[in-house]
Amino acid sequence: MSKVLVSLSGGIDSTTLLGFILDGGHQTTAISFTYGSKHNKYENESARQVAAFYGVELIELDISQAMTNIESNLLLSGGEIPEGHYAAENMKSTVVPGRNMIFLSIMAGIAASRGFESLAIGVHSGDHAIYPDCRPDFISHMNHAIQFGTDFAVKMVRTPFINMDKRQIVSIGKSSLMIQPPYHLTRTCYKDQPLACGKCGSCVERLEAFEQNGWIDPVEYEVTE
Amino acid sequence: MSKVLVSLSGGIDSTTLLGFILDGGHQTTAISFTYGSKHNKYENESARQVAAFYGVELIELDISQAMTNIESNLLLSGGEIPEGHYAAENMKSTVVPGRNMIFLSIMAGIAASRGFESLAIGVHSGDHAIYPDCRPDFISHMNHAIQFGTDFAVKMVRTPFINMDKRQIVSIGKSSLMIQPPYHLTRTCYKDQPLACGKCGSCVERLEAFEQNGWIDPVEYEVTE
Repeated sequence: MSKVLVSLSGGIDSTTLLGFILDGGHQTTAISFTYGSKHNKYENESARQVAAFYGVELIELDISQAMTNIESNLLLSGGEIPEGHYAAENMKSTVVPGRNMIFLSIMAGIAASRGFESLAIGVHSGDHAIYPDCRPDFISHMNHAIQFGTDFAVKMVRTPFINMDKRQIVSIGKSSLMIQPPYHLTRTCYKDQPLACGKCGSCVERLEAFEQNGWIDPVEYEVTE
Repeated sequence: MSKVLVSLSGGIDSTTLLGFILDGGHQTTAISFTYGSKHNKYENESARQVAAFYGVELIELDISQAMTNIESNLLLSGGEIPEGHYAAENMKSTVVPGRNMIFLSIMAGIAASRGFESLAIGVHSGDHAIYPDCRPDFISHMNHAIQFGTDFAVKMVRTPFINMDKRQIVSIGKSSLMIQPPYHLTRTCYKDQPLACGKCGSCVERLEAFEQNGWIDPVEYEVTE
């Protein structure tokens, strides 16, 4: 058993990840970030409910002032969230440059201060095409930067889903964990509205993942096709 | 000529670095961070005055809320700043785990958003013994993480002083730059007081660097021996 600090956005990937890490018997704390995205207040509320469901401590940090010079349509300061499939070129406008690097760096500092031996983040292969800081190359180099940058106080960035797609993540959640993750509490939609839109790349990918598992997504949508 | 984003704390290393990068003819913006250190308000004011002296834009970011779970005697939340020589074991309590990694990650996000091809940071060999995120190994891995994490929008972390000590940095400032850096505006002391103490590791190292160059430090000290 070791101490693991888990990035918890409140979406289905990180919610499954938290269950997966807990299944490993690790002593686990979750962390969520306010960074200025349109869906931030909804996903933060989901993160709170998911952490409470699992009974783990949640560290909530606000870095939105530090993001004011970073440009993305995912952010409140940016343009419209595009609709359609994730793989589409227009979804590139939702990249937040440096986001996972910033999250992991802050997590590394906290981990080194509080004795967490590893970090965990729910990056997966569905993100590789457009989000560079979800790719294996980035994670590999960041892993080394974190090891050397903390004098090896932090030993590892755990990314158990990095070569899986969202279908496989939902499949793990459906049938492979001791406690089924509380997907009814999660938030995936990128838009600045309480109800998930069902049309943005993030919603489309999630709906497909549930459908491919022959499962019904417990979250309510504005539009389902 | 390229666009360079320079980390400017307001100390003598980063002030010399800014002059060095400007000498290279680059289009340069400086960035300073409020991260909860005891001397933050004094060094931020120095950074403002140094940026104004050189006539460069200064981006000022506040990440202090994100640092609340990070432990160090350098921070307002930590214990006393130790006195004596930098190499001393007790100076380790001034390490802020993850600090340069967090700074560089945020800088990478801004650089990728605003078209800066490289970052610059004034790490030097005097920091290697106790600060892991000032060492060549860390910078090398972080450089790769930033390249891959921004899809090579950011091409390089510049660390021209990484194998020099503070004596050599002051020597460059004294005689090798087109404009002599405004050392009278800089702030090095770690303590939470307007006047530099002259006794903490940071002050001791600075005073030695000026003395070894046969030069008088233009900043006033509480104690000089």
